[in-house]
Amino acid sequence: MSPLAKFRLSYEPPLPPLLRNLKDLVSTEDVELPVQPNILSQFDQLKRKKIVFKKGSFSCPPLKVGVVLSGGQASGGHNVIVGLYRALKSLNANSSLIGFLNGPGGIVDNKTKLLDEAYVNSFLNQGGFDMIGSGRTKIETDEQFEKAFKSLEGFDGLVVIGGDDSNTNAALLAQYFLKRNKAITIVGVPKTIDGDLANEYIETSFGFDTAVKVYSESIGNIQKDALSAKKYWYFIKLMGRSASHITLECAYQTHPNLTLISEERRSLDSIVNEMVDLIETRAKAGKNYGTILIPEGIIEFIPEIESLIKALNRTQDPNELPDDLKKFFFSLPDSIQKQLSMDRDPHGNVEVSKIDTERFFIELVKAKCKTPFTPQPIFLGYEGRSAFPSNFDAKYTYALGHLAALLVAHKATGTIASISHLKESVDKWEIAGIPLISMMDMEERKGKMKPVIAKKLVDLNGKLYKHFKAEEKKWDNDDYVSPGPIQFSGPAEITDVTTFTLGY
Amino acid sequence: MSPLAKFRLSYEPPLPPLLRNLKDLVSTEDVELPVQPNILSQFDQLKRKKIVFKKGSFSCPPLKVGVVLSGGQASGGHNVIVGLYRALKSLNANSSLIGFLNGPGGIVDNKTKLLDEAYVNSFLNQGGFDMIGSGRTKIETDEQFEKAFKSLEGFDGLVVIGGDDSNTNAALLAQYFLKRNKAITIVGVPKTIDGDLANEYIETSFGFDTAVKVYSESIGNIQKDALSAKKYWYFIKLMGRSASHITLECAYQTHPNLTLISEERRSLDSIVNEMVDLIETRAKAGKNYGTILIPEGIIEFIPEIESLIKALNRTQDPNELPDDLKKFFFSLPDSIQKQLSMDRDPHGNVEVSKIDTERFFIELVKAKCKTPFTPQPIFLGYEGRSAFPSNFDAKYTYALGHLAALLVAHKATGTIASISHLKESVDKWEIAGIPLISMMDMEERKGKMKPVIAKKLVDLNGKLYKHFKAEEKKWDNDDYVSPGPIQFSGPAEITDVTTFTLGY
Repeated sequence: MSPLAKFRLSYEPPLPPLLRNLKDLVSTEDVELPVQPNILSQFDQLKRKKIVFKKGSFSCPPLKVGVVLSGGQASGGHNVIVGLYRALKSLNANSSLIGFLNGPGGIVDNKTKLLDEAYVNSFLNQGGFDMIGSGRTKIETDEQFEKAFKSLEGFDGLVVIGGDDSNTNAALLAQYFLKRNKAITIVGVPKTIDGDLANEYIETSFGFDTAVKVYSESIGNIQKDALSAKKYWYFIKLMGRSASHITLECAYQTHPNLTLISEERRSLDSIVNEMVDLIETRAKAGKNYGTILIPEGIIEFIPEIESLIKALNRTQDPNELPDDLKKFFFSLPDSIQKQLSMDRDPHGNVEVSKIDTERFFIELVKAKCKTPFTPQPIFLGYEGRSAFPSNFDAKYTYALGHLAALLVAHKATGTIASISHLKESVDKWEIAGIPLISMMDMEERKGKMKPVIAKKLVDLNGKLYKHFKAEEKKWDNDDYVSPGPIQFSGPAEITDVTTFTLGY
Repeated sequence: MSPLAKFRLSYEPPLPPLLRNLKDLVSTEDVELPVQPNILSQFDQLKRKKIVFKKGSFSCPPLKVGVVLSGGQASGGHNVIVGLYRALKSLNANSSLIGFLNGPGGIVDNKTKLLDEAYVNSFLNQGGFDMIGSGRTKIETDEQFEKAFKSLEGFDGLVVIGGDDSNTNAALLAQYFLKRNKAITIVGVPKTIDGDLANEYIETSFGFDTAVKVYSESIGNIQKDALSAKKYWYFIKLMGRSASHITLECAYQTHPNLTLISEERRSLDSIVNEMVDLIETRAKAGKNYGTILIPEGIIEFIPEIESLIKALNRTQDPNELPDDLKKFFFSLPDSIQKQLSMDRDPHGNVEVSKIDTERFFIELVKAKCKTPFTPQPIFLGYEGRSAFPSNFDAKYTYALGHLAALLVAHKATGTIASISHLKESVDKWEIAGIPLISMMDMEERKGKMKPVIAKKLVDLNGKLYKHFKAEEKKWDNDDYVSPGPIQFSGPAEITDVTTFTLGY
């Protein structure tokens, strides 16, 4: 263990007032939340009332609870489990917590680990999901549901720590178990560094705060480097397949020269021309350097590329494309033609996720830009998912774990742990259980209508985006900001400030 | 400015005892250091005695001193200048410090900025070289020396902050000015993140400590990610064209599954076979993930590649290669053949630095490995050069700046600022001026014998390397260590510990 890892073991995340003594709480049903009719009919076993807690006497029987980490890593996952463990034990010392290993596949295949105090405690405030591992298996088929049913025999509850898909799965499991008269409480916890599992009930998912700070540290360093050597243009790709929250937040934290936001759905020409103009204008001013932030998912938001990919998915041979798309395809640089026509998944579809978006734009700009410039492609991704959680994420997840235990103990199945007023101090945080169905809608997925939790995209009419567009103009005069590495000691303004995204 | 940037302005780096009151110091000539005869004859104007300081009364006239940042960024450069400024002013309030802009080119072209207190202070403990910029121009031609001579008219001293080449240049300038009877004192300061400007007089160059910590933070995070998701093999390229100190130090800090050290000069087959074996063995044990650290310069240390590149530099057409090399060339994966045969510099030479070393090995391993694996190429480089300096680099550079001022004031031309006992507390640090010629040797560069400061490579017979080879075997059982982000507050064991490299 590194000295910092040991040091972080001694940090006790403060809890919101209501979570400090769980035995003094009773649950009550609050308002009924609006639910889409077609969701309501599919989830007829689930309740639609918000669950809140108030002072009262509660005696908890010993509970056997499972926990699973689902999908990509996000800082704070371990603290959810530590919080869950401690809360369950405080409610009844005879309760037990069992980890399902390596994601939902561990439920299907019944791979478990009984979590004990010493083991759990050794992960307090540590990054990664390695306490029990994670995975992306989706419980979808009848056979998988049946297997899950068997694995969860004798369990009182299951806590699913995951993103939009995993929480949708949690609701499906809750419905399935109720239909089969199985008394098991399924509770979700909102996780994803992308920040797209957010809505009127979920202010932010955990892991976003840490990830954007890790990326912003690097961007800030790279910008200082650009400003010092004055010879590189850094094309920086950031995580975010569907939504550009990470990119937008990093822009606020670091003030780059140009920031692309997928949700703007700009044409390829418009983006490339802006990059070329920027590079040429700055070169004329003696500034042949700069930084451009690019969300990894942007390619699928560019109308021309979207059409081209759809057409390429129907044909293997670019010569068979419709005339306009064929012309567009062959106007692209060779390396991009190659990436689009060669990389196919087993179904023959273009593997968009394998396209190096930052290199894609470098090639396009190089082909158009008259000024010579030296581009450096950078991808910031994996280093932001398993970092030591920031104080914010450490506190938020520790509280989420406690709240999940409480929701299980009070049999609030089909709910997600929801903590609000997060931009205020922990003392002001409020807790609730929100029915997952209140966040769901039907969407077409692979030709079939499926229940989903809608991903939150960057709202182009929202205050955060509008203020960014106004501010961005001022940043071009090398107004770079370097936030530096996440700090765990020192004054609160450097250790406990959260994101611009949450602040708006 | 970010909150952390402001916070760091309030950190006052402690000074070694002798540097706390510069007016109470006199210089004395200490032992004569051994110098190569052919260096001695070329630098006949320069002295070979070590300069030390002891208590005594000293009255300093007002000095006009120049400072230049040369080559790649390294954390702490600003603190050298802040320390230099404050020390000069403390010796005589009428002294002035002038920055030459954007590297040695600023001396040739006489581009300067008078540094004032408010401006200088605003860079205390901040990363980057943006206070006056940096550059890679080398003062080589007679015309350039003549121009430098004119630019430095009226100056009493010049402080050159740079690596081995820049400090060699400092010695050449010192010799040149003495020959022309110009009383200007040239003093060097050892800078480079690569850690290869080190010898019996220089324990480490500044910037290494911060860079390896920034890289190790990312490697630690990525390893946690590998261990959590269990599906990626991370091929991580690290900076270090000539020497592998960065890679070796990061290995000590993070315990990866495999570490390549350029200086081992292993054959390509041996490296690729080890990677293939490792991946296959781990896959059989259910561990189809891991991390491999690769120094960027390794390609030029692999005997087959070295021969191939030399031969390719003589011919444009791979079909004209000697038979054995031709066979080797065409045995390489297509993408590598392409990189080797296409990317040429203006002289027709293969541009080795443009080869993506991490992708190079991925291609070779993919071609040989029977087990499917998912590689992720990662390059950690630019984010480590301009980061906020660690406490160690902040202290070291602040002291180096003071020492450089002292050496200028005491007319120790042709020396480099040398601080020893760095692994102990600042109170134990010792200061000296070491004649640059004592570190120099003649080497062939582009067909001509040139004076150079030999780069320190990893010593395969040294304790640090040998202990690493013994330890490495224990690390394969996922003994990953995550050092986390550099901390600036908290207990000394997390804020002020330096590197394994320095400790040995």
